[in-house]
Formats: sequence, C-alpha cells, structure tokens
Amino acid sequence: MAKARIITLLTDFGTVDPYVAQMKGVLLGMCPAAHIVDITHHVEAHDVVGGAFRLAEAVPYFPPGTVHVAVVDPGVGTERPILAAGLGGHYVVLPDNGLITFLTRRLPLEELVQVRNQRFLPQDPSRTFHGRDIFAPLAGWIANGLGLARLGPRPQTYTLLEIPEPQQQDGALVGQVIYVDHFGNLVSNVSQAHVDRAGLSLERVHVTCGRHEIGPVRGTYGNAEEGRLLTLVNSMGFVEVAVNRGRACDELEAAIGSEIRVFER
Amino acid sequence: MAKARIITLLTDFGTVDPYVAQMKGVLLGMCPAAHIVDITHHVEAHDVVGGAFRLAEAVPYFPPGTVHVAVVDPGVGTERPILAAGLGGHYVVLPDNGLITFLTRRLPLEELVQVRNQRFLPQDPSRTFHGRDIFAPLAGWIANGLGLARLGPRPQTYTLLEIPEPQQQDGALVGQVIYVDHFGNLVSNVSQAHVDRAGLSLERVHVTCGRHEIGPVRGTYGNAEEGRLLTLVNSMGFVEVAVNRGRACDELEAAIGSEIRVFER
Amino acid sequence: MAKARIITLLTDFGTVDPYVAQMKGVLLGMCPAAHIVDITHHVEAHDVVGGAFRLAEAVPYFPPGTVHVAVVDPGVGTERPILAAGLGGHYVVLPDNGLITFLTRRLPLEELVQVRNQRFLPQDPSRTFHGRDIFAPLAGWIANGLGLARLGPRPQTYTLLEIPEPQQQDGALVGQVIYVDHFGNLVSNVSQAHVDRAGLSLERVHVTCGRHEIGPVRGTYGNAEEGRLLTLVNSMGFVEVAVNRGRACDELEAAIGSEIRVFER
Repeated sequence: MAKARIITLLTDFGTVDPYVAQMKGVLLGMCPAAHIVDITHHVEAHDVVGGAFRLAEAVPYFPPGTVHVAVVDPGVGTERPILAAGLGGHYVVLPDNGLITFLTRRLPLEELVQVRNQRFLPQDPSRTFHGRDIFAPLAGWIANGLGLARLGPRPQTYTLLEIPEPQQQDGALVGQVIYVDHFGNLVSNVSQAHVDRAGLSLERVHVTCGRHEIGPVRGTYGNAEEGRLLTLVNSMGFVEVAVNRGRACDELEAAIGSEIRVFER
Repeated sequence: MAKARIITLLTDFGTVDPYVAQMKGVLLGMCPAAHIVDITHHVEAHDVVGGAFRLAEAVPYFPPGTVHVAVVDPGVGTERPILAAGLGGHYVVLPDNGLITFLTRRLPLEELVQVRNQRFLPQDPSRTFHGRDIFAPLAGWIANGLGLARLGPRPQTYTLLEIPEPQQQDGALVGQVIYVDHFGNLVSNVSQAHVDRAGLSLERVHVTCGRHEIGPVRGTYGNAEEGRLLTLVNSMGFVEVAVNRGRACDELEAAIGSEIRVFER
Repeated sequence: MAKARIITLLTDFGTVDPYVAQMKGVLLGMCPAAHIVDITHHVEAHDVVGGAFRLAEAVPYFPPGTVHVAVVDPGVGTERPILAAGLGGHYVVLPDNGLITFLTRRLPLEELVQVRNQRFLPQDPSRTFHGRDIFAPLAGWIANGLGLARLGPRPQTYTLLEIPEPQQQDGALVGQVIYVDHFGNLVSNVSQAHVDRAGLSLERVHVTCGRHEIGPVRGTYGNAEEGRLLTLVNSMGFVEVAVNRGRACDELEAAIGSEIRVFER
C-alpha cells in the first residue's frame, strides 16, 4: 500500500484557485507515497477537445502503471457517466464526455468500465466538484491496487469526439490546425503516417496555410532564418507550421480550425 | 528524520521568478524526503485576504501532520511577528498579518506561538525574502519533528482580518462577493450555514446580484442551459453565482465586494 | 538505483502544453524515485539570458547532488553542442548556448563535458524536442549515478553570454536593469560587491533610474510609505528599485536595459 505510485492530473482548473490542491490533499490522504505530477491545469475552461489532445500526448511517456486523472467536465454533477480505463498498461479515470478520444488512438484499450459500484463512490459528493470528491478518490483506490473490474461493468457504449480527419483532394491532404502551442506553433491533424499513406514524399512536400505557401519541410526551427516561416514534422508526429524564434499563429493570423493543405511540389 | 512529510506552499510570488524554487531548495536541504505541494503561488501580489481564503479552503483536505507555509507578506522585514500554529492536526507557518483568519474559522486552533527563539531563526536573513530565509527553514524544523512550543511563547494577541459577515435585512441575507474563481464564478460570503440559521429554505431561495435576479438554486452548472446564469451552493459551501460554460463575473460585471442578496420567493 | 535524487527543470515551455509532462514521464521512467522540482517553465520563449539568470539564482539553494536540467534552446536540432557540468557539487545538463553563463559566476566549475557518447544519446531523437529526447534521459543517467566523464570529452571552448558589467563613471557606478520580477521590481546588475569594490558606502548611496532619484537605501519594502519608490539590496544581492506594494516597472516605465546609476550623495 505504500508503493510509490505515480498519479498525474490534467484539468481546466487553472492554478490560481485552491481546487487542484484540494484534489492533491485527498490523493495524499489515501496514498501518502504517491508521486503526483501535473500534466497541465491550463486546458481552456470546458475545452474537452484540447484536454483530450494533451492527455493523449502526455500519457504514453509515463511508465506503465501510472494512474492518470483527467477532469475537463462541463457536465459535472449531471447524469454523464464516469469511466475508468486501462490503456497500454496505464490507468485513466475521467468523465465520459469524449476526453478519452485521442488516447484510444495512441494506446490499446485493454479495459474499460463505467464506475457504478457505490462502495467506491462517496455517499454525498458535492454536485460541482467531482474532481475532488469522486475522481481523486477513484485514482487513490486504483493507485492502491484496486482492479478496475471492481468499479463497475463494461459500458454498452461511451462517448468519442468527432475529430475531423484530413481528406485527400486532388492529390493533396487537406487538414486543419488542431492545436496551437505556447510558442505559437500551428499543429495540424496531418500526421507523418497520413503523408506516408497518401503516397506523398515528405522531402517534396509543401504546405499552405491561408495565402502562404511554406516548404519544403525542414528538420527543425533553426533550419529557417530567424523570423521566417517553416514547416516540419513535430515531436508529436504532426505536420506543423512555425516561425523560427517567432509566433506562426500571429504571423499567419491562424488558429484552431484553420485549413492546412499538404501537397507535393 | 527521513519521514516523508508533506509540506505545502501558498504565496503571491508567481511562478516566473526563481523565488519559489529557492524555498523548495532550502526545504529539500533540510528534509530530503519531504513531499512538497504547491497550493498556489498566484495569490494577487500583497492580497492577504485572497491568500487567507485559499489557505483555509485547501488545508483541511490534506492529511493531518502536513506542514503548511503561507507567505503573502507585504510587511516582510519590518517588525510584524511570525506565527506558527497547530490547527486540527495541521501545522501552519505564516506572517502575523491576518493570513490565518479564515483558517481559524475552519479548524480548531490547538496551538499558537510567536516565533522568537533565535536558535531557529537565521542570524543574518535577507530583509526582503523571509519566505526563503525564515519561513521555509521553520517549516523544515517542524517537518523534522520540532514541537511548536520550542519556537516561542503564546502571543498576547495576533492579527485577524475584519471580514464582513452577511447581514439579515427585511428577511433577506445581504452579503457580498468575496472570491472570483478561474471560471469567473462569483463566490459569496453567504454559506449554507448562514442560510439555514436565517431560517431560509434553500429550495425557495433566489439571489440578486446587481440588477439580476437568479433562482431558484440549482444543483450544478449543467442544470442551467448553456450560457445562462444560475445560483448554487458550491463545493466550498458558499452561495455562488455562475454561468453554465460561461463567466458570471463578465456577464454581471461583478467583482469582489459586489452585493449578493439571498431571499425566499 | 532507487536513490531519491532531486531533479530540477527550467525551461521556456510554459505549462499549457504537454511538453513538460513528457519530460517528467521520461525522467520517472528512468528514476522512479526522483523528486522532480520545477524551477520555472515561464522563461520568455527563446530568452537565454533570462533563463541563465534564473538558473544561477535557483541552483545554489538546492542540496549538492541535485541534477538540474535547463532547456531554453532556440537552436534545438542544429549543430549546437550539449553540455553536462559539475558546479559546486551540482550537476547541470543544458545546451551550449550561454545558458550556463551566470551559474559559472556563482559556483565553481568543477567538471565540464560536451556530450558525445552515442551510448547515452538516442538513435533517432526528434529534431525539435531535445528536452524530452536527449536532456531528460541524460539527467536520468546522471541521477542514476553515471559519471560526467562517461558522457564525452572536455570541450575546447564553450559559449558564454556577453553580459554587461557596471562601469565606474565620475565616481558613480553605471549599470542597467537586468531582470524585472513578478512584483515589478527592477533588479540591476549592480551587486553589493560592486558597490563595496567601488568604495561607495551603501548608507550614503542614491540611485537614479530615468529621471527619478531614489535614496537612501532602505532595508525592505515596508520601510517606504505605501506607493513610494525605494531602493534596496535585494535577496539576490543586487541593487533593486521597487515601489512598496506597487510596481516600479510601471511607475518608472523602466524595463530590462534601462540605465541604473548608483552614487553617493
């Protein structure tokens, strides 16, 4: 029981309020030896898609056996179910609102339950903060060795977000920006795998975003002159548009949803 | 000495400067096995009231025996005393400027000393950063098992903030917004207990904030339509005005100090 | 191997993206018992000078044996070398772009290698995220006991930033603002040691910043009236211009690079 289990947290709670600390206090009360790691608490408020993306990009880098708690939960306190899942040796606890979507594409879904066993649910939780009153305790039980099957049955169905996939069009791949990072880099939903499957050669590929054509693909930011636009396959495996030491999102006035077209020249 | 004690930090230092890391380095030098948890470092600069509120909402969720260091300390280096307290099995180290106020309402004050014993104070601390030079070492001593009584005598008096209490007026409770959280939710100083004591029935209660009347009380955010104002008793036990998936503070142009009137309809 | 080594992180990655969590996952995979401490992730993007300053101010407060990873790395993926260093009993891993500069002034440089041993470098790292793919694993190796000499040879040369030193001019010390902290305090590059060496008496010293003359030196913020400008020697040992409970950077419209003149009156 005193195993040093890693527990990660991903929320849209920010770090200004006492909410995240309340969750950590609850976790440490149940698992004094837990190693708690913040993935981020700066998902934009209620942005399930943005939370799902970050979760899927962070989880695979932790050692198997890690317990991940993800709470972007605009439906807190309503009838939306709660899921606990095993993916690639990881455990995840999260609301059934699509937050699991990208993770199921990154890791094999080995186990999935809808949490219903009242023994592991508080009798009188707050209606507005399940992160503290339900999700954190569930993570504590799992970190202490409880099997997921004890928490409830496999659900008939669960929510997956409808995430746009890049489309082939006149020999080009037409996708869109799905994430803008802290550096202003524009991350598209076109992955290296999409490029390969479309029969495009990464060496000859150019990209258009708005009225700008950018290419050919570079290896890294510093391969472009300072202040210049470039495109590359980023560390998450996606085609990205960036500016060396600058902010592509400002330079191109692009944002989530902006069209990205990948083609050979 | 190698016990894995939990030490929490609450400051107005932000996370951009090296100040918090300096405190953590000092703590880990004294207690290599300490588990350090950030409550928040984003209390607004010099906002003792906001710090006191967050401290009281976070501390009770940690396991007893936790050592809490709170530094919102505009009087650093002046004659303001330093307090160490035991409340409900928790240890707290903080400046004697009112930062302890809300905590004394949440947990029983079991022990209180004014830190004076030179043996546990540095000989030549900086005048401007007692968080690093005095508070962190004191927390280290306490985490390592030092009894509070060793630090100094019980003070004759200590500072408590004058926090407004809601008033009864024509059958209504008239309070005010005391906290605005990251989601823009308006937290009032009217607690469930105030409502009960005033003989008001929560089921019939409405709330006015500015020119808006909101009610009846809902269970959670998702019980209102998206974008609509609602009122509820939040996870901290206070009457709150919110917008489902929106920001009540913007919608109502309300802020700390705005009047909140709670009444039956 | 299960030693509880402290590993600190300093980056310009922010805390919104999954990047820092990816680094922590990699570290915990290699060192399950590591105690990871964030120095800051809010160095301004690509600001090597600001990163170097914070690193030097934080590292000395940690216990010797700590492993510090610093990644402000606009040249990621290009030919810029990677350094591992021992300074005052601390270990540091960072790009060879000047990030080590201030640290070499604070702690004795005991060991320095350019990382070249392919055994400790991944075969196919991303070109854009060496923090995760190279620096974190190197820190893991060092935390697990690997000697720096195993990583590569002592370099012929390495990059140091050209940081302006205060100049003596007509009996005054003429320096500049090198850091503005979260409170808006203006930190100059004039240290207590510079003042002493110039034969100035701290008690008689005044400071000009822009058209304002401020002095004499105070002990701490609360020694000036609320809202008033003051100057002091701060907790890092530098002459600082501040406003009691206010923001000197706004009051004086000063920023990094603004001239600070220290003289006796």
